Amino acid sequence: MRDIQNQPDFRKINIKKVGVKNISYPITVLDKANATQKTIATVNMYVNLPHQFKGTHMSRFVEILNRFHGEINLKNFHNILGEMKSRLQAQAAHMEIEFPYFLKKSDTAAGAAAVEYRCRMHGSLQDEDDLVMEIMVPIRPPSSAPASGVMPRSLGNWGIAKVALRFLRFIWIEDLIIMIESVASHNLSWSSPNPPGSHDELTLENMTRSLARKLRDNKDICWFNVNIKNFSQSGDTFAALEWQKA
Amino acid sequence: MRDIQNQPDFRKINIKKVGVKNISYPITVLDKANATQKTIATVNMYVNLPHQFKGTHMSRFVEILNRFHGEINLKNFHNILGEMKSRLQAQAAHMEIEFPYFLKKSDTAAGAAAVEYRCRMHGSLQDEDDLVMEIMVPIRPPSSAPASGVMPRSLGNWGIAKVALRFLRFIWIEDLIIMIESVASHNLSWSSPNPPGSHDELTLENMTRSLARKLRDNKDICWFNVNIKNFSQSGDTFAALEWQKA
Amino acid sequence: MRDIQNQPDFRKINIKKVGVKNISYPITVLDKANATQKTIATVNMYVNLPHQFKGTHMSRFVEILNRFHGEINLKNFHNILGEMKSRLQAQAAHMEIEFPYFLKKSDTAAGAAAVEYRCRMHGSLQDEDDLVMEIMVPIRPPSSAPASGVMPRSLGNWGIAKVALRFLRFIWIEDLIIMIESVASHNLSWSSPNPPGSHDELTLENMTRSLARKLRDNKDICWFNVNIKNFSQSGDTFAALEWQKA
Amino acid sequence: MRDIQNQPDFRKINIKKVGVKNISYPITVLDKANATQKTIATVNMYVNLPHQFKGTHMSRFVEILNRFHGEINLKNFHNILGEMKSRLQAQAAHMEIEFPYFLKKSDTAAGAAAVEYRCRMHGSLQDEDDLVMEIMVPIRPPSSAPASGVMPRSLGNWGIAKVALRFLRFIWIEDLIIMIESVASHNLSWSSPNPPGSHDELTLENMTRSLARKLRDNKDICWFNVNIKNFSQSGDTFAALEWQKA
Repeated sequence: MRDIQNQPDFRKINIKKVGVKNISYPITVLDKANATQKTIATVNMYVNLPHQFKGTHMSRFVEILNRFHGEINLKNFHNILGEMKSRLQAQAAHMEIEFPYFLKKSDTAAGAAAVEYRCRMHGSLQDEDDLVMEIMVPIRPPSSAPASGVMPRSLGNWGIAKVALRFLRFIWIEDLIIMIESVASHNLSWSSPNPPGSHDELTLENMTRSLARKLRDNKDICWFNVNIKNFSQSGDTFAALEWQKA
Repeated sequence: MRDIQNQPDFRKINIKKVGVKNISYPITVLDKANATQKTIATVNMYVNLPHQFKGTHMSRFVEILNRFHGEINLKNFHNILGEMKSRLQAQAAHMEIEFPYFLKKSDTAAGAAAVEYRCRMHGSLQDEDDLVMEIMVPIRPPSSAPASGVMPRSLGNWGIAKVALRFLRFIWIEDLIIMIESVASHNLSWSSPNPPGSHDELTLENMTRSLARKLRDNKDICWFNVNIKNFSQSGDTFAALEWQKA
Repeated sequence: MRDIQNQPDFRKINIKKVGVKNISYPITVLDKANATQKTIATVNMYVNLPHQFKGTHMSRFVEILNRFHGEINLKNFHNILGEMKSRLQAQAAHMEIEFPYFLKKSDTAAGAAAVEYRCRMHGSLQDEDDLVMEIMVPIRPPSSAPASGVMPRSLGNWGIAKVALRFLRFIWIEDLIIMIESVASHNLSWSSPNPPGSHDELTLENMTRSLARKLRDNKDICWFNVNIKNFSQSGDTFAALEWQKA
Repeated sequence: MRDIQNQPDFRKINIKKVGVKNISYPITVLDKANATQKTIATVNMYVNLPHQFKGTHMSRFVEILNRFHGEINLKNFHNILGEMKSRLQAQAAHMEIEFPYFLKKSDTAAGAAAVEYRCRMHGSLQDEDDLVMEIMVPIRPPSSAPASGVMPRSLGNWGIAKVALRFLRFIWIEDLIIMIESVASHNLSWSSPNPPGSHDELTLENMTRSLARKLRDNKDICWFNVNIKNFSQSGDTFAALEWQKA
């Protein structure tokens, strides 16, 4: 059989992206407290094809992933994208991974499980590398009352914060989680300038702005998108903003 | 071709249940305020086969459903099951339908949408009819404060109550929702004997018991199962109980 | 209380988008065979705020939606966006709705249910209107064999095609579905130039290109994005392309 | 404060079950090829309470789980249930865990990922231990053609088999997967007595029976429930059967 995979394609309509999606894959990620953490990712890998080629060998994507044994760190992310680009003769290579990250807080009681956070990394390589990290942090009213023990311990789920960012220097996932949770917690506490009940919408918008200010003040972050959602009875309300270092 | 669908099956291992699942189907249900409500159900239909037959005509299930045009009420439920049982020569017939039910509350502001509740009905007919109705009601802290306006308007989702019941006389879905919500709301309010913060677990268990007492006092209900879940940081807590009229 | 909703906000970090999400809402859409079809949508509505304002009245979004009683057609889409923009004093208004659309095929046997397709419409209004329609069409091997009855009737799910498009003139959802299904079916049939087994990846890419050619030849379509996924054992493979009328 | 957790409860309506649900928890399970495999489970733990007690300490569930560090094997399952029963003074203890299990097949090409299977174990301890293992195995048409290379390599997803079983002696998850896949594959191949296209329903029912026969012939299995689903255009068809060793 002719190797039609490498023949020029003269037809007018060209495939733009080709790849694999929803691969469930055990990976190892960096963990501040324990050096590494094993988790399970959903992986998407795809390339932008140059116009004069058609077809690609789908199995090569997973072959490359297998060679790195699922060790996901900044250096490997770059190397995987580089191999995808060269072996598939592509203009650009992309890899998206999404995984649960478990954080056991230092003040956690013996009877508490580590908390699960959804993380997502989207790397791409055309002429330059680009990496966006995204984290989803559930927001809950703070568990202790400021004054008289009136505030309930488990009021359930207030909402969720989704933060996407680009960074100049490596940032630990746990440092990011702690930053987001402290802002959320402060904005829902009774001593905040806008106590939670006075105006939902203000609480939501103030929390979004407070978090943005905190992220902007971090020298290691050069771009972010903050999206905060408040669950309510018939649908959620949300506020979002984006910032880019000048 | 021989009609192998109607041949006796002498092999030892027999199919017990056969049917169709996950059929997305527009239906009409009864609605206290508007007479009827159009919604979209997920339907499962299956039969228990007598041992001496093998095979069945899968298309007959949907054929029967189509004949009733998705009108789902108590009488039709019975008739559909009856047709399934006779046309498929089955020992028993089952139909499960799950659908979102929309309730627009009378005190709803112009800017509020109707609230969506998940309902499920499981009917079966062997020698006698049996029908279990199930409803999922989200639980949220009450929206107004008892005293000084301190209580937040939208504290998000505290948890969810799942109530399954058998009844002696028809019960409106909305009456059931209102009953469940009033119990939940009372148990989460500050004037309740166990204010929400003092002990999560007590709040959860007291709410479960209060709801059970209310359902037990309803003359039209002859059996129920109550399961209440409270969302918390690393998993949910739940309490459940079941009751049968003596 | 001061009306802080309308006060200028001099702080540096500004909310970019604000709105409501995941509202479950019964709607009526146009249907070629039956004039209209009642279904249930998930609705997102949001606005881009001008920098000098803060806050917005969340309830206004649903208030506007309620005024149109969930009648979703091209004219109403435009009017809803217009009201959002003016009543919320916004730079831009967006509405996304996603819903199941039911299509009963003319050649359908009595024992078949209508088939469910997921549709999505994303409209926005800044200076001009923009509307993107998206449809997900499951791909299944054709149900009849070309020659000797060899091809199985229900081989399950081969994959899914997601087609997003902008149009110059109104297009019926059902015409779009039929177009997509006929291309998929042709590419999976034995008489096709690349029979399904010879090369998965070629089948996938050829199908993507065939569908693109068909869409390009439709005078009413001015832009599209086609993304076809083939389910396989450990993840899916996909090919995608985009086209814009010159 | 009085220790109300240990006080008798004289009210008539008693909580039947209480516990924790949906805890996301990293675990280690046995793996035939690699001794152990790290994965992530969703865990439910609950107890039946004796009637004269009310309340329980929710944190104790996770405390017990933490003490076993997520090592899940038959011995630990028994020990965890035993501790739950004694520490919570319960009549019965239950633990359900659900997790993805990854299997790398020996004949797998370099470019293939391990395949993910969903597993579930439900253990309970009242007077005696009981353990049910459940596995979901996707069914796909066999990847090679019997004669002339006509059969497609990736025909997508035909359906799914759910097998639950009780065993007398330990069974490797991978042995179970291989058994299920070989039966499914044989029943969908062209040389089978009922080739896949002739009658969907027969293929489905024959496959269910073939699998049941194979499971019944395994001396280590004392009970099973087989449920096979075939995906089709507007809903799935299924057949199920159950067997108990005499």
